[in-house]
Amino acid sequence: MDHPFDADTAVEAAGDHLYAATITDRWNGIGIRPNGGYALVVCLQALRRSMPFPDPFAISAFFLRPTAAGPALVTTEIARVGRRVATGEARLSQNGVETVRAVATFTDLAAATGRTLVIGAPPAPSPPPGAVDPLGGASVPGITIADRFEYRMAEMPGWAKGQPSGAPSFLFWMRFKEPRDADVFALPLLVDAAFPAVMEIGELGSSTLEMTVHVRGRPAPGWLACRVATRYVVDGYHEEDFEIWDSAGRIVAQSRQLALLPPRPACVRE
Amino acid sequence: MDHPFDADTAVEAAGDHLYAATITDRWNGIGIRPNGGYALVVCLQALRRSMPFPDPFAISAFFLRPTAAGPALVTTEIARVGRRVATGEARLSQNGVETVRAVATFTDLAAATGRTLVIGAPPAPSPPPGAVDPLGGASVPGITIADRFEYRMAEMPGWAKGQPSGAPSFLFWMRFKEPRDADVFALPLLVDAAFPAVMEIGELGSSTLEMTVHVRGRPAPGWLACRVATRYVVDGYHEEDFEIWDSAGRIVAQSRQLALLPPRPACVRE
Repeated sequence: MDHPFDADTAVEAAGDHLYAATITDRWNGIGIRPNGGYALVVCLQALRRSMPFPDPFAISAFFLRPTAAGPALVTTEIARVGRRVATGEARLSQNGVETVRAVATFTDLAAATGRTLVIGAPPAPSPPPGAVDPLGGASVPGITIADRFEYRMAEMPGWAKGQPSGAPSFLFWMRFKEPRDADVFALPLLVDAAFPAVMEIGELGSSTLEMTVHVRGRPAPGWLACRVATRYVVDGYHEEDFEIWDSAGRIVAQSRQLALLPPRPACVRE
Repeated sequence: MDHPFDADTAVEAAGDHLYAATITDRWNGIGIRPNGGYALVVCLQALRRSMPFPDPFAISAFFLRPTAAGPALVTTEIARVGRRVATGEARLSQNGVETVRAVATFTDLAAATGRTLVIGAPPAPSPPPGAVDPLGGASVPGITIADRFEYRMAEMPGWAKGQPSGAPSFLFWMRFKEPRDADVFALPLLVDAAFPAVMEIGELGSSTLEMTVHVRGRPAPGWLACRVATRYVVDGYHEEDFEIWDSAGRIVAQSRQLALLPPRPACVRE
């Protein structure tokens, strides 16, 4: 039986540069709706069919409308195929309405041979002894994506104790709960599949307008160490930066998203 | 007479969602070719014609091929118009060949009213007393974009003294040399119009594959304080993060680009 990630991101050719997919309810995040990173991976699975290179590399997705569980179509187009990289576009639609537009450059990461220089130390490759599950082993009603992953932190974060720290950044480790090592196609989902940094400033979530993912390497098997941070909340909009490091201590993904905080109930308006 | 920025980014309607532009040689950067951020602004000037909102907000550009001085066409398409944001796409081509593909969400930044929380202190709003021009007042042959801006730093950087510091990050201030305050359309150029952070690790430049710009506010008049940093050079590819703060101490733009270092001559290969 296919792993849920493979089964739920699969696409089937349905015409010239046209693919059929079924969005499931097993990756629901904030708002009890399919996670944006999940919908993006479906786009990339369609795009890879026309790509001469194996690795999604630089990816930008605009989330135009919420994607819903149910059938979807993805149209793809190739903008340029070069010697080293190729770029194309994918549009996911449901009932004739576009919900996600993604542009992505693919490459062969194994063929890159230039200089390497990493500023700063990598995080620990796996959770430290005594690490805790910030969800305490519980499911979150409706948020099915939390059932697909295991999360570990050095200690319970403020938001999980009802006492947000006020500092919207943290380090954690994650991996698929149903065993499967993450690959380059899982990374664009993983960067969007954890707790928003803004939970440490008392927010319960936010809606992503745009997300850019740079896949910097093919991940080694095992835990993935993740750093997430928000620095600038301006008039309700904020960025979220996400880094993923593999168990070999190499950075494998960087992402940034621009997101909108939900309006606050009038009773707690600042 | 129009300011060079306005004259050189102007577009003229040439059909249904089709605009004509003239790329000039006054914004040449690395490689003595028109700067990517400049070509991106031409795309945005075309896209704004169909947008119900005034401010480019979340922008992603893929640089497919070098853009050259000379005539260009921009085709635009609107993906979605919502109550708060609208998203569209622009493709710049020369002689029938696409060189830049950009997707952008526009909004009305003045209408955003949510929470604001900034982590960390803003940089000084203008250059400190005794600040220096890292170019020493000289022109750089062929790099005409350096004639369009004034740059200031607290002291001469390592790369300008032929002694790269090894730390690819720095703070500087910039503004148009021919007087004009920067607006939201200038920001996507400015984030790409200064010295690459990798000059502090001995590199002379790099080629941008993809750049994402988030315009976080309308800049106040005056100097703009810029922070630029590269943290991860992996197999020849690196990200560059760029922040722009206005003279009122507010963050007005964040960008990240993924770029490729040029191959090194065999005699200095590491």
